[in-house]
Amino acid sequence: MSIRILVTGGTFDKEYDERTGRLFFKDTHIQEMLRLGRCRVPVTVETLMMIDSLEMTAADRETIVTRCREAPENRIVITHGTDTMAETAAALAAAATGRTIVLTGAMVPWAFGSSDGLFNLGSAVSFVQSLPAGVYVAMNGRWFTWDNVRKDRASGVFESVR
Amino acid sequence: MSIRILVTGGTFDKEYDERTGRLFFKDTHIQEMLRLGRCRVPVTVETLMMIDSLEMTAADRETIVTRCREAPENRIVITHGTDTMAETAAALAAAATGRTIVLTGAMVPWAFGSSDGLFNLGSAVSFVQSLPAGVYVAMNGRWFTWDNVRKDRASGVFESVR
Amino acid sequence: MSIRILVTGGTFDKEYDERTGRLFFKDTHIQEMLRLGRCRVPVTVETLMMIDSLEMTAADRETIVTRCREAPENRIVITHGTDTMAETAAALAAAATGRTIVLTGAMVPWAFGSSDGLFNLGSAVSFVQSLPAGVYVAMNGRWFTWDNVRKDRASGVFESVR
Amino acid sequence: MSIRILVTGGTFDKEYDERTGRLFFKDTHIQEMLRLGRCRVPVTVETLMMIDSLEMTAADRETIVTRCREAPENRIVITHGTDTMAETAAALAAAATGRTIVLTGAMVPWAFGSSDGLFNLGSAVSFVQSLPAGVYVAMNGRWFTWDNVRKDRASGVFESVR
Repeated sequence: MSIRILVTGGTFDKEYDERTGRLFFKDTHIQEMLRLGRCRVPVTVETLMMIDSLEMTAADRETIVTRCREAPENRIVITHGTDTMAETAAALAAAATGRTIVLTGAMVPWAFGSSDGLFNLGSAVSFVQSLPAGVYVAMNGRWFTWDNVRKDRASGVFESVR
Repeated sequence: MSIRILVTGGTFDKEYDERTGRLFFKDTHIQEMLRLGRCRVPVTVETLMMIDSLEMTAADRETIVTRCREAPENRIVITHGTDTMAETAAALAAAATGRTIVLTGAMVPWAFGSSDGLFNLGSAVSFVQSLPAGVYVAMNGRWFTWDNVRKDRASGVFESVR
Repeated sequence: MSIRILVTGGTFDKEYDERTGRLFFKDTHIQEMLRLGRCRVPVTVETLMMIDSLEMTAADRETIVTRCREAPENRIVITHGTDTMAETAAALAAAATGRTIVLTGAMVPWAFGSSDGLFNLGSAVSFVQSLPAGVYVAMNGRWFTWDNVRKDRASGVFESVR
Repeated sequence: MSIRILVTGGTFDKEYDERTGRLFFKDTHIQEMLRLGRCRVPVTVETLMMIDSLEMTAADRETIVTRCREAPENRIVITHGTDTMAETAAALAAAATGRTIVLTGAMVPWAFGSSDGLFNLGSAVSFVQSLPAGVYVAMNGRWFTWDNVRKDRASGVFESVR
């Protein structure tokens, strides 16, 4: 069972620029995280963009949808900023014919000591193998269907809408 | 969906004793790891034993089986040393009537920088919610049924028997 | 030989706010770092301010100078943002009568995995015990006198002026 | 001011072997630690041996003394297991003509998350630049002369004999 991981950026992949003191994107850490997790699932990692999800445009979402449609795999994980993850999940709903698509992200950059990223990646890689076709968000150890999820901005926790 | 996590020790929870230079068990790190993963699944953590799985006896396995039978939850994660994880999974097979039981562990202690533990915990917590009733091993980002798994000692990787 | 550590903030103590995605100050990590370093030098930690050194005013510097003059200890370490560390060192020069004062900081926040903070703190605590009275900057494993140091902004490295 | 770092092993450089579950030596982490500390002192790192200091023989100590005598640098840091660090310091006393030699180590392996190693390395690199000729032990943020130091086995703390 082969999985495609589409990287779009988000907190997951933010790094600290020690010259400017600002957070920025360089390369994805997904491969390094999979190595640390001793992951042996056949995985193809593809970086689509490296952006903050608050800056994600309709065109960016179209790119993500298109790449999911074209992917040879039926199991796709998308790393994504948490702020608009639910929005992208909704955009993907129509494209999920026969595919299991799981979006995940992190509240704290992986490059920082106390990141939830590795837990979330383990979770997403597992849900994508075991859930039926559909579009899901995997955060906080839980899974949500695309039409029943939102991020509570105050607490940073994902929850069901209904 | 409530989960019970039964702790039995294993590499997961080993620590470094700086006076003797040896590895030893103190308390489980599961709660700390769930906090780091921002896990919001209702979880009850119960420590059954804190031992190396090479030292696990038939009586210890009986204890694990009994606790699974008695647990009010239908979804159970067991943290376990990797060396005899498959053996305990087999012992649990008869007890899994109607329950989903997932065993997981780590190749490197969580207390060390480069542990696979957080990835595996995220994976186990996710598989236990999404797989049908049965006994499974979750390692290397994959899941295995209890009757089709072994650890390859040379590589430290879990694989299907058949 | 007792040491006073005056905390002023700087990258050293920056943390990641997972709700806003921005860096901010909360509490100092100095006590935690000294514990990790198993430091057994008698130390008193005093937080004067928690600010980015680019925002440090003349009044802030006056506060630092005054606290150094009033300190009962002859050995003082000051944690400080790197951008204006040399400026504060110069302001302290007149106050260093009979005292050894060492300023240090970090290029990467301590809360992040790859920080130079612990190395720098070990360095500053050591230089302050072994250098004669004067005002110094301890960065990059080296020490500089207050009148012969600058930070090269492009590389983030401290160097002699002459 | 150029420094030579002689590596002899010790807890500093121990790693976790995930196949056997035992601690072992592979390569030294000193270069990686200096990079993390953004150290800019000219340093030459030389690995003499990779052993637990409890297994250090008289011949091993002779090797260390000889390398110190032959080193072109007047400033030498030696990384060393903590258990017999004081013994090696004593053996070096006669060889320290005109040189500053600082021994340091770690209570917890660098490869583990909670190591004191980076703090100690920052400390040793600083003391070696600022102390007069002689043989010293740098641990716990303090320095000790070779003839006035011992490790308290119960607490793991270095202290003066007198």
